[in-house]
Amino acid sequence: MRILVANVNTTETMTEGIAEAARAVASAGTEIVPITPAFGAESCEGNFESYLAAIAVMDAVVRYDGQYDAVIQAGYGEHGREGLQELLTVPVVDITEAAASTAMYLGRSYSVVTTLDRAVPLIEDRLILAGLHDRCASVRSSGMSVLELESEPERAIEAIVAEAQLAVDVDRAEVIVLGCGGMAELKDRVVERCGVPVVDGVQAAVAVAEGLVNLGLSTSKVRTYAPPRPKRVTGFPSR
Amino acid sequence: MRILVANVNTTETMTEGIAEAARAVASAGTEIVPITPAFGAESCEGNFESYLAAIAVMDAVVRYDGQYDAVIQAGYGEHGREGLQELLTVPVVDITEAAASTAMYLGRSYSVVTTLDRAVPLIEDRLILAGLHDRCASVRSSGMSVLELESEPERAIEAIVAEAQLAVDVDRAEVIVLGCGGMAELKDRVVERCGVPVVDGVQAAVAVAEGLVNLGLSTSKVRTYAPPRPKRVTGFPSR
Amino acid sequence: MRILVANVNTTETMTEGIAEAARAVASAGTEIVPITPAFGAESCEGNFESYLAAIAVMDAVVRYDGQYDAVIQAGYGEHGREGLQELLTVPVVDITEAAASTAMYLGRSYSVVTTLDRAVPLIEDRLILAGLHDRCASVRSSGMSVLELESEPERAIEAIVAEAQLAVDVDRAEVIVLGCGGMAELKDRVVERCGVPVVDGVQAAVAVAEGLVNLGLSTSKVRTYAPPRPKRVTGFPSR
Amino acid sequence: MRILVANVNTTETMTEGIAEAARAVASAGTEIVPITPAFGAESCEGNFESYLAAIAVMDAVVRYDGQYDAVIQAGYGEHGREGLQELLTVPVVDITEAAASTAMYLGRSYSVVTTLDRAVPLIEDRLILAGLHDRCASVRSSGMSVLELESEPERAIEAIVAEAQLAVDVDRAEVIVLGCGGMAELKDRVVERCGVPVVDGVQAAVAVAEGLVNLGLSTSKVRTYAPPRPKRVTGFPSR
Amino acid sequence: MRILVANVNTTETMTEGIAEAARAVASAGTEIVPITPAFGAESCEGNFESYLAAIAVMDAVVRYDGQYDAVIQAGYGEHGREGLQELLTVPVVDITEAAASTAMYLGRSYSVVTTLDRAVPLIEDRLILAGLHDRCASVRSSGMSVLELESEPERAIEAIVAEAQLAVDVDRAEVIVLGCGGMAELKDRVVERCGVPVVDGVQAAVAVAEGLVNLGLSTSKVRTYAPPRPKRVTGFPSR
Amino acid sequence: MRILVANVNTTETMTEGIAEAARAVASAGTEIVPITPAFGAESCEGNFESYLAAIAVMDAVVRYDGQYDAVIQAGYGEHGREGLQELLTVPVVDITEAAASTAMYLGRSYSVVTTLDRAVPLIEDRLILAGLHDRCASVRSSGMSVLELESEPERAIEAIVAEAQLAVDVDRAEVIVLGCGGMAELKDRVVERCGVPVVDGVQAAVAVAEGLVNLGLSTSKVRTYAPPRPKRVTGFPSR
Repeated sequence: MRILVANVNTTETMTEGIAEAARAVASAGTEIVPITPAFGAESCEGNFESYLAAIAVMDAVVRYDGQYDAVIQAGYGEHGREGLQELLTVPVVDITEAAASTAMYLGRSYSVVTTLDRAVPLIEDRLILAGLHDRCASVRSSGMSVLELESEPERAIEAIVAEAQLAVDVDRAEVIVLGCGGMAELKDRVVERCGVPVVDGVQAAVAVAEGLVNLGLSTSKVRTYAPPRPKRVTGFPSR
Repeated sequence: MRILVANVNTTETMTEGIAEAARAVASAGTEIVPITPAFGAESCEGNFESYLAAIAVMDAVVRYDGQYDAVIQAGYGEHGREGLQELLTVPVVDITEAAASTAMYLGRSYSVVTTLDRAVPLIEDRLILAGLHDRCASVRSSGMSVLELESEPERAIEAIVAEAQLAVDVDRAEVIVLGCGGMAELKDRVVERCGVPVVDGVQAAVAVAEGLVNLGLSTSKVRTYAPPRPKRVTGFPSR
Repeated sequence: MRILVANVNTTETMTEGIAEAARAVASAGTEIVPITPAFGAESCEGNFESYLAAIAVMDAVVRYDGQYDAVIQAGYGEHGREGLQELLTVPVVDITEAAASTAMYLGRSYSVVTTLDRAVPLIEDRLILAGLHDRCASVRSSGMSVLELESEPERAIEAIVAEAQLAVDVDRAEVIVLGCGGMAELKDRVVERCGVPVVDGVQAAVAVAEGLVNLGLSTSKVRTYAPPRPKRVTGFPSR
Repeated sequence: MRILVANVNTTETMTEGIAEAARAVASAGTEIVPITPAFGAESCEGNFESYLAAIAVMDAVVRYDGQYDAVIQAGYGEHGREGLQELLTVPVVDITEAAASTAMYLGRSYSVVTTLDRAVPLIEDRLILAGLHDRCASVRSSGMSVLELESEPERAIEAIVAEAQLAVDVDRAEVIVLGCGGMAELKDRVVERCGVPVVDGVQAAVAVAEGLVNLGLSTSKVRTYAPPRPKRVTGFPSR
Repeated sequence: MRILVANVNTTETMTEGIAEAARAVASAGTEIVPITPAFGAESCEGNFESYLAAIAVMDAVVRYDGQYDAVIQAGYGEHGREGLQELLTVPVVDITEAAASTAMYLGRSYSVVTTLDRAVPLIEDRLILAGLHDRCASVRSSGMSVLELESEPERAIEAIVAEAQLAVDVDRAEVIVLGCGGMAELKDRVVERCGVPVVDGVQAAVAVAEGLVNLGLSTSKVRTYAPPRPKRVTGFPSR
Repeated sequence: MRILVANVNTTETMTEGIAEAARAVASAGTEIVPITPAFGAESCEGNFESYLAAIAVMDAVVRYDGQYDAVIQAGYGEHGREGLQELLTVPVVDITEAAASTAMYLGRSYSVVTTLDRAVPLIEDRLILAGLHDRCASVRSSGMSVLELESEPERAIEAIVAEAQLAVDVDRAEVIVLGCGGMAELKDRVVERCGVPVVDGVQAAVAVAEGLVNLGLSTSKVRTYAPPRPKRVTGFPSR
């Protein structure tokens, strides 16, 4: 099967990192096709950038000229998954949700460790809307920006481990979710230091997407995610 | 004071209707400035269209060349208010939220009567995220599309009154909220037929916006709605 | 328009302070009429005193011999608003609720800083019943009694600022609500020290009441707030 | 032990009915002392009357000149229990709460069948504040006023049985709570007709009060129910 | 009346301690009959042991050859109460639930202080399912195992008092529940040290069971707790 | 990989049906090993039978003499998953939870259609504890017993389709979950008749288990699911 994995920002090196993380867990017969939006922000750290990413990801996916079996939206806590579900007939998996529902199989509660403090509310909102917030012990920020994760990996690990440990000890999390599309390579380091399962959203989403395709399941079209009604629309680049 | 009232779709006649509704309740010293997005859908009835509207409204407001004291986003159940709050320093009022919080002063529970069935989940999600869902008895759809509200007003009234009455009798609502930007002129008819207070979102938002300006209050900038960080952004028309 | 602003305790100087706060934000055409209950406690700090205040406020308002367009109950976290809504046809605004719903327009979550620790549960209960608790980050007490707020303003400010800062830093509040009828004059000092919007309940209630009157809206009479049924009632002073 | 059972209205025949219901289940060594408030409404069916009852019950209990071991507030869905808890050192049991927590031992969910439609919100509010609403399947009204329960017992039984049966069949209640102080004598008839356990609040409260006294437990005084602070209070009749 | 009090573990000395605690509060006419399961773990501290206890308690109760009026399951946070309710026609009282609902009459919120950290989630789950979690301020562990409570009573008291005090000061609990079947004798010491009411589950359950029997109430058989359907069952020892 | 799929009842033909359903979706390299408990009920339809199944499944899995990579507990709404997680180091997947979290990727809300009415509360409880209940529109019973599903497949389909359709139309479900271990073969028929995605729990669990194994993830051992402490345990057959 072929899975499109859409980065939410315009930084190509992050797209590559995401693709690498996805391929590391994909099954033998699964092809990972990374996509970078044609416009948007170089990193998504707030609502304005996230709303723009929502449109940019829809644009990039609709533009993609080829067959595919599932789409992963590889931004943590970002807007847009519902729009993709309206536009497509294949399953759409958001990494925020895939990570949370995967973590819930592994322990009684999970915490998310993300980048900047301002990302916390966006993540909480997505988890609430997805109905996956009940077992969320906390969403904690490491204070590192998305781009600093790439440029300062050692400092990032220390900051993430420190918050993960507080999540386990104080918030009573039993599983840690890495709350950013570009954190997969830090995963083993956090496992080693904290002694609890650590879930990377991109990788969890690959497993979920493969599962849905194997089960022959896709988005319900009866109400919320019915296709857009025919009407005059301007300004959506790919139309 | 000057209040920008942004329609979320590209239909100019609806912008005019919204402006008219706003002006009908605005205080003497308040100037209502209607804005129509430069792109998007002719009506918003789903997530794809709503996400596009989010960007289009931000674009239209940022492009607006003049002073203003508050912004109203005049789409019911639409995405985007959080982005405006990041970009602006003046208060931003979403009509979904203004209508709900106004209704909560008038009765123990309220119901929303909206257009199509597919709009219901979007409205519920916005009310949940805004923390205004506890006293929502129900969100009911009249089965009328946004554009049919304009073209078939008599049929619309009958459909809305029927659902409003069920909301009062079955769902135990004590107040009805009209769940669409273009319903203000139907308000008196529903009041007369159902015997409960009826709240129009645009008009409620004008009162709320005037109140916030009079109180000298605006959006907190400490975390969620801090301005976007300086970074490379492409594809947002007004930048 | 004329708005009755009812203090909940019998301390005239507090009634004056409340009236002053209300007048500071009232629109040009709005007359603020302060009312002091004829009986009750000199300050309300608990359920017994608050229940007595509920009756005393209803009594004072019903006794008021004149026209008015709205009533504000100016006690933070007090009982009684529902009774006023049954007895009156004009809108009734409780300052606890007005402050909370105003704060929710300004940030993703708010905290209340109130007087004594024992006031906290009353406030939480009112917010829960009003359906405005979801976005409440915390209710914190300054440890100052209602009367100490008046007699020791400098110590009060320090205590309130300290709790407000903890609310922002630890509880992740983005807006502070002053949880007492007599705190309005402290508002600017807290804003200056904490850097977040600060909402005074009395002032918020004035804006809300003006808005409701401007919109032509008042309490629904279909169920919860229908007028009392005709029956024998003794011991209510104003009957 | 001696238990004061306070009616919330001024109708002596209802006080007698309540006392009779209480005595029917009281243990051998328990003396039931009924109290009728010196003022208030002849029946409580709304917030105004209920707030007045809150003060009237506190007044009547404080005036009571004798020893007692516990107090039962025998009004369903009424205000005031928290005030009694502040004023007294013996346990205070509200029949709304006693009935609910008793019902929760008997089935997975319970419904309340009460008098008029307007009583429903008051009952729901009390259950929410008491933390006993999660397992409440519904609160249904029979359409009978408090006084009609006494004057038209046969019609009352039919109306109550009809709602109880709907609660079991439609709302999935497994236990029925009679939601009024004066319904105890109807209990057996409803049991016989509906085939589920039926809980009378007054009787449940007697068992709870006896239990608390036997366990040597009473109200915590550390925060919410600490005694009123010493201060000037006027207008409370018994002071 | 006769009440069976079933220990959940196989340690006879704990059964005796439980019986002693029960007898200390039982009414004159109440006979307490302690039961020790024929199999299971010497102490229950986790799900495996708790599920085994569920079967072992059902087995022991069903084997009991005699009349009885109620059953108490004397394990804190354990599985199984629902099964007993299906098998029996007399009331079944779980000490976790009896303690919580008793505590809720005494203060606005309660905390549970239990044994090991791993017991916390089981207790929370039972409270959530019973609909008694809303007013639970926290469940705290003393770090003492069930058996250490018996072998090191002084250290246990210090550990429990320390957590109880944190519950009152930090979590705002107003009542403490002792979260283990074998803690009753520590109760007075905790009361004395912390100054708040302390509820022992076994003793609370005795009062609740006596109350239900006195009221003539027992488990509803209409749905959840209907008797098992006739079918082939093997491996349940007592069949 | 090898996945143990444990039936919860002792009916071998149901074990075979479950295995067949599992194999129909398992990946090429996945071996499905079905297990039937050595004791218990021929079908699980209530708490007593479910608690017995919990022990019987743990027994059967622990007795299994061979390597395996994951375990699926193939009973819908049954007790026991937490115990398996304590005893094992490989991932454990409950079909109730797998079906729900899978359904949540496909639509905004899902309904479960199960067997007898008495199974509904067990399913709701499991979903609540798993934190997967927020997006559950309803749990509906078809009125068919577990064994009737096998013996009367045509009547079963009609009953299930009727409830599924009500779930979609009335409860606003967008996805249907088949709430029983033995319903997989009915899936296509329900899809065809109702036009929404239909999820079988066993098949969903296979996909989830494969995903967890591929991701190298398993149960966290830090608190809730730590191994049982060393102690004397009797009566657990496999020890």
